[in-house]
Amino acid sequence: MPEITDTFRAGGTHPAPRDLAATPAPGILAAPDILAWSCPAPLRDQPRVVMGHGGGGALSAELVQHIFAPAFGGEVLAQLGDAATVSLGGARLAFSTDSFVVRPLFFPGGSIGDLAVNGTVNDLAMSGARAAYLSCGFILEEGVEMAVLARVAEALGAAARTAGVEVATGDTKVVEAGHGDGIYINTAGIGLIPAGVDLRPQRVVPGDVVIVSGPIGVHGVAIMSVREGLEFGTGIESDCAALGGLVDTMLAVTPDLHVLRDPTRGGLAAALNEIAAASGTGVVLQERSIPVPPAVANACAILGLDPMYVANEGKLVAFVPREHAEAVLAAMRSHPLGAEACVIGEAVSEHPGMVVARTGLGGTRVVDLPIGEQLPRIC
Amino acid sequence: MPEITDTFRAGGTHPAPRDLAATPAPGILAAPDILAWSCPAPLRDQPRVVMGHGGGGALSAELVQHIFAPAFGGEVLAQLGDAATVSLGGARLAFSTDSFVVRPLFFPGGSIGDLAVNGTVNDLAMSGARAAYLSCGFILEEGVEMAVLARVAEALGAAARTAGVEVATGDTKVVEAGHGDGIYINTAGIGLIPAGVDLRPQRVVPGDVVIVSGPIGVHGVAIMSVREGLEFGTGIESDCAALGGLVDTMLAVTPDLHVLRDPTRGGLAAALNEIAAASGTGVVLQERSIPVPPAVANACAILGLDPMYVANEGKLVAFVPREHAEAVLAAMRSHPLGAEACVIGEAVSEHPGMVVARTGLGGTRVVDLPIGEQLPRIC
Repeated sequence: MPEITDTFRAGGTHPAPRDLAATPAPGILAAPDILAWSCPAPLRDQPRVVMGHGGGGALSAELVQHIFAPAFGGEVLAQLGDAATVSLGGARLAFSTDSFVVRPLFFPGGSIGDLAVNGTVNDLAMSGARAAYLSCGFILEEGVEMAVLARVAEALGAAARTAGVEVATGDTKVVEAGHGDGIYINTAGIGLIPAGVDLRPQRVVPGDVVIVSGPIGVHGVAIMSVREGLEFGTGIESDCAALGGLVDTMLAVTPDLHVLRDPTRGGLAAALNEIAAASGTGVVLQERSIPVPPAVANACAILGLDPMYVANEGKLVAFVPREHAEAVLAAMRSHPLGAEACVIGEAVSEHPGMVVARTGLGGTRVVDLPIGEQLPRIC
Repeated sequence: MPEITDTFRAGGTHPAPRDLAATPAPGILAAPDILAWSCPAPLRDQPRVVMGHGGGGALSAELVQHIFAPAFGGEVLAQLGDAATVSLGGARLAFSTDSFVVRPLFFPGGSIGDLAVNGTVNDLAMSGARAAYLSCGFILEEGVEMAVLARVAEALGAAARTAGVEVATGDTKVVEAGHGDGIYINTAGIGLIPAGVDLRPQRVVPGDVVIVSGPIGVHGVAIMSVREGLEFGTGIESDCAALGGLVDTMLAVTPDLHVLRDPTRGGLAAALNEIAAASGTGVVLQERSIPVPPAVANACAILGLDPMYVANEGKLVAFVPREHAEAVLAAMRSHPLGAEACVIGEAVSEHPGMVVARTGLGGTRVVDLPIGEQLPRIC
């Protein structure tokens, strides 16, 4: 599929197979597998939007690359980080937005109201910014119960107070029954980036240590456990939380962290692939080091999912200069939201743009960018 | 309906009948009409969301007052302006958000993409701020044609370039067919408020001159003319436009304008009522001075609508200190978007919080806050 190969090469969202062939790392990668890698669907030729376009994987990237980026132009958008970094009145600000269409509205450990705050607050935190102000736009479906709306609004307000962010402005639209799904929420947030902090994938260098702040896959499994048709008892609650405090703790050790990302849609795999692609380094993970709670592993086994691709809403992954890694890890573990932080891998000069995992049996597998989300409407 | 009266009194969104009775202005208001004023529906007791909750009128205000404001708290939200004024890193910023659910996506004179830029850019302009950065969140319905999405994105990008604002960050979610309506867009925007500019209804004083930037009702009629089941030929195109340049022209005359508002949902009537309620002054309009294009007047006559309540997307209403009114009006008329600007009334000390119009026959009518929007999903 040469057309797809070109697409990816042009956009830099994924390494082209030929580049890999040119820089083989025989001990790690089995060349035949790599060369056989191809995209399972002709993404560019999708005539209509499919669910996967909202999944945070390759299809989402295609949409940005082929529709939004050319139409909007602009240098800031081209950064494609969790948040944009902009300058205004002499202040360096992080600015980010997310819409929330999670189903159901309430789930173990949270609600769409919690997500609407923490999703955007965390995007800002990944720039090192403490969220200061949020906007909040509701799209309500005619007929939604006022009591449900009130519960969501209360959850949103409480989450904002916990995160230390103020809801400063809002908007409400109502659409006819059958043109929504109860409540959709968009939030946008702004926050100040501290002096000396410059977090972006381009700063990643081989040798950087990859740290994850805790067990992965929890949010996604919590949602799946209550999704209609899938109900199963896990006792797992979403990890939905605001990460600004944890990031502050890390930056207090050194402002010289290289990049932070919160692995939401598409999970840890999508976050690491985006960083690898944008930084031009490779990433090697020790599969055994990746913390997966037994209940998540069991649920994923039953559902045929890979925890690496399951969404998180209260975790971050950090690329830290080797000399600071130990101190940053210790600081993270001193914070409630980083108590189970651990090193899971490192940035390498081999296989630029690609993420691989060393398996427990001594083998190596490619952890590629997901096409879409395994389960739609996870956030 | 004493309960409703209490509701309004508590929230200050509308004068209570008894207050009016205490300060009668016999020459203007017929007391029996005022005392009989009551709300046609027990708003607080709506158990479910209805279309009118998204209409920008009394039902929308109820939602903010009883659900959002108590849940979110915060002093900035309580300003309830078109945009919030916030301070960050020493900069005074305007911050605003709007969601767009207009139907159809394309209409004479514009599209949801144009609206998504101009709606938010204009909210910022009403604070005197020139929009600098926009966020853009799409909620797409599965199955929407990629070509339609591309057209909308291109319109959005072009409108942003015209307005001089950069789309800095975005997000895309996809919902299943039957849970959306093609494309919904949320934008949030930030911009710098110039030093010395302080635009808010609390600054309005009796004697202020009320200026409108041009003919009203154009956007709403343009949408209605293509709405399914309502099609009629008017030749009218939406006035959708970015008002930042016009506002700059006005502020160049004097930074001491008192308040600006763009009369979108709920039309001029809603905008003036909000200003009257928040400022505690009355507003008297000369009905004959209000510019209504003949085609808008005809369409409204056919549909049984009042042009005062029809949405605009490229107009503003200004409360200007009397000593600056002539110069500001002249400056507005020198700008393409203000060529037909005219004085339509004044702020008065009588009937605080209430808007009245002197009719051509020498009578007076109350222009009250609409309950909802005359036609849903106008923006």
